[in-house]
Formats: sequence, C-alpha cells, structure tokens
Amino acid sequence: MFMSDIPLAPMERILRKSGVERVSEDACMALRDLLEQKALEVGFKASKLARHAGRVTVKAEDIKLASE
Amino acid sequence: MFMSDIPLAPMERILRKSGVERVSEDACMALRDLLEQKALEVGFKASKLARHAGRVTVKAEDIKLASE
Repeated sequence: MFMSDIPLAPMERILRKSGVERVSEDACMALRDLLEQKALEVGFKASKLARHAGRVTVKAEDIKLASE
Repeated sequence: MFMSDIPLAPMERILRKSGVERVSEDACMALRDLLEQKALEVGFKASKLARHAGRVTVKAEDIKLASE
C-alpha cells in the first residue's frame, strides 16, 4: 500500500502453495504490505548488526541473526 | 533458495530503505527466503481462519489476523 517494492503476482502463488483455494486481491496486497514491513524491520536490525561486527556491507549472517 | 517466488531486486531496494549502505547478494537471497517462509506461515494460518469464518476465499482480514 505505502511502498510496493514487492510485486503482487508472487503473493497469490505463495498463498496457493500454503493451501489457499481462492484469494481476494486485497488479501494479496495485505500480504505484500506485511512482508515489506517485516523486510524493513529485519533490514534495520541487520544494518545495526553489520556495524556491530565492524562492517558496512550487510551479509546473509546479519539477515539471519536479525530475524531470530 | 528453496522456492524463489519473490524476485531478488526488490530485496535490495527495501534494504536500502531500511538504512543499509552496502548489501551482499547472499543477504538479498537470505531476506527473500525469510519472507517466503513468513508468507507461507501466514497463508497457512489465513487459510484456516477463512474456513473458520465459513469461507473458501481468503480475504485481507484473514491475512491481518493470521499475522498478529
């Protein structure tokens, strides 16, 4: 809604994989908003973790630790 | 890694929005995997919530409640 970096189409595919039979478009948008919010939170934490480790480059290990 | 429904490019854009200066490709992949896992979990719960409300169509309210 407020950002939309992630495209909408993959949301429906993922929802079908999780066992959803039918899905409304607003459900796909709600899922996308939720994921973008989660990504921002994880990114913010990962950025702090990278600096804490003396780096400016965020690596996979920062993302993983940030999401714990 | 195991699914890849969400494209990789938006991951870097979102990470930059969250204040990250430099980001490795494996960090983008780690973020994507994490978001896809989260989406599957939310979808699974949302599917159950829709059925619980007597519907087969998953709506935004199911996604929101599932993520609480």
